[in-house]
Amino acid sequence: MSYEERLRRARATADEAGLAGLLLPPSPDLVYLTGYDPPPLERLTLLIVRPADDPVLVVPELERPRALDSPMGRRLEVVGWRDGEDPYELVGRMVPAAAKLGVGDRMWASHLLGLQRFLDAGGLVATSTAVPLLRAVKDSDELGLLELAGRGADEAFEEVVGLGFLGTTEAEIGERLAALLREHAHDGVNFTIVGSGPNGASPHHEPTDRRIGPGDPVVLDFGGRVRGYCSDITRTIVIGRPTPEIREVHDIVREAQEAAYRAVRPGVPAEEVDRAARGIIEAAGYGESFIHRTGHGIGLEEHEPPYIVRGNADPLQPGMCFSIEPGIYLEGRFGVRIEDIVAVTDRGAVRFNEAPRELVEVV
Amino acid sequence: MSYEERLRRARATADEAGLAGLLLPPSPDLVYLTGYDPPPLERLTLLIVRPADDPVLVVPELERPRALDSPMGRRLEVVGWRDGEDPYELVGRMVPAAAKLGVGDRMWASHLLGLQRFLDAGGLVATSTAVPLLRAVKDSDELGLLELAGRGADEAFEEVVGLGFLGTTEAEIGERLAALLREHAHDGVNFTIVGSGPNGASPHHEPTDRRIGPGDPVVLDFGGRVRGYCSDITRTIVIGRPTPEIREVHDIVREAQEAAYRAVRPGVPAEEVDRAARGIIEAAGYGESFIHRTGHGIGLEEHEPPYIVRGNADPLQPGMCFSIEPGIYLEGRFGVRIEDIVAVTDRGAVRFNEAPRELVEVV
Repeated sequence: MSYEERLRRARATADEAGLAGLLLPPSPDLVYLTGYDPPPLERLTLLIVRPADDPVLVVPELERPRALDSPMGRRLEVVGWRDGEDPYELVGRMVPAAAKLGVGDRMWASHLLGLQRFLDAGGLVATSTAVPLLRAVKDSDELGLLELAGRGADEAFEEVVGLGFLGTTEAEIGERLAALLREHAHDGVNFTIVGSGPNGASPHHEPTDRRIGPGDPVVLDFGGRVRGYCSDITRTIVIGRPTPEIREVHDIVREAQEAAYRAVRPGVPAEEVDRAARGIIEAAGYGESFIHRTGHGIGLEEHEPPYIVRGNADPLQPGMCFSIEPGIYLEGRFGVRIEDIVAVTDRGAVRFNEAPRELVEVV
Repeated sequence: MSYEERLRRARATADEAGLAGLLLPPSPDLVYLTGYDPPPLERLTLLIVRPADDPVLVVPELERPRALDSPMGRRLEVVGWRDGEDPYELVGRMVPAAAKLGVGDRMWASHLLGLQRFLDAGGLVATSTAVPLLRAVKDSDELGLLELAGRGADEAFEEVVGLGFLGTTEAEIGERLAALLREHAHDGVNFTIVGSGPNGASPHHEPTDRRIGPGDPVVLDFGGRVRGYCSDITRTIVIGRPTPEIREVHDIVREAQEAAYRAVRPGVPAEEVDRAARGIIEAAGYGESFIHRTGHGIGLEEHEPPYIVRGNADPLQPGMCFSIEPGIYLEGRFGVRIEDIVAVTDRGAVRFNEAPRELVEVV
């Protein structure tokens, strides 16, 4: 979909949400709508999208050449402001002060507080609340990239389990995973979680120098980017033969993941998918050990709407992509998580990850 | 200075500024005060620093193990919240709703708007406004790291000019600079600006495939990190012999940079340093072509208070570190900028960059 078409849709989406405009800082929103990707800085850069007017890109004067050279730079009004001028006042003149406005989630507080000097604080709503589905339904190009990213992550997993874990450190496995992602389609690595033994009970554990020993379960959760679009996969493996308890916990998580996958179809509230996974884990007596939501949307961001969490009644739509990643965490002992990225289709979910979900025994 | 001492000072600073507390998200502020460095995410992580109470670190439940393992994790109260709970309500119970509170500049708008459901929007002030000098005066460890970073950047510049520019692309020079920074003390690269010929007129130009030709002036502005602390240096070189105009513009910028350097001493308002540089450039008739402030503080962030800009009357103090980087930008033709990092001492400024400031002629 072209940037023009995305901007047109964003205007319509804002209008439908009763917003007089969207105020979007450097962020995936800006990249999605214009292709412009500056770093977030203390100087204000802001895309203003209004239902009834053409979009305006406000930039620091010294960034103007780069803004003009960006994909939509010559097709947008670009307004520069200079150091010492008040960019918030400038923006305040471009949108109605008392209106309801959507503010990009990642806007820095310093900028939001600056804008609130000229705009009614009560009218400002985060875009994830006001227009959560702005980027949630992926077009065919985006689906293609997410599929490619998923396949690359699968291949990285399938290779890493053949390389031998016993006696290596978590950090070494993390480095291998990063290199394997790059070998398999990825142009950047976002994170590599390697949680062995008791470290697996920390869902976002960072790899340490702990040496992986016999019998350890190891949570491998990693992802990167393929032309901007993210991969994110988790598998839990075991070094040698698992104990009956590890096998049981893994079976429960796998069943929960499968139940959530089967719950996906258009029109189903997002929270129902969470409930499907949680129901299995609670029934097995591990409800207190499943300490996070079941999943998150994915695209230009690792985490974006729709969130698969209690309280999110938004109905699923074809083209939405998100993770399904239930887990059980037993403090001081071990953790298990299984995660795939799925896309909603007319007939249910398709998975972008097909690496083996059974408990792989690794040497 | 220990984290405990920094936290103690932050409490005193907040108190002096009339604040009932500081609300600090994942950011250099959090690293500075606690050593904890999680990525900013859609889930709320927040350090609450109050004058009269012990600090509290609010984290998503699944991040708790990592928070506890961070340098201050066992010496702070760490409060977890679970997906589906409202973390903003939780924070709202920890600070007085109608009080004046400092909000970390980098807090995401989604979190600030969430907090504003429970806290009076009118009482919230960005920390860069409320307590701009929280991290501005560097201790001796910090000064040592900034000096080391400056020296590494100097060495990278001195090596790169010996490698030959004619016929190479900006992108290739950018890659060389990145590699040279890593060879010289840096453990990360933040940016490499290589603006040759007309591209030099864009202050934040990203390196392109443009081949550098005879007579081109080239703006080289690059920096990285040494154990978290940033370097940032700019030199403008010329390929072969400069035209009289290039030499003249370079002389003006160099004189402006020197004048600003000489204006630095304790008690001088930050904006006076800007005025010193700007005065020289305006007097030479290039005022309209100096399109940015003279400098920015530096430390754990590339850009942080104090800003050397019109309107900033904060007096300089010994231990403050910032850039002095006047420039002249002639659209469609070329640009010149010269930048050093300096530290304020009792007797004036010392430079952390000593690479040659004259117009170096390169082959």
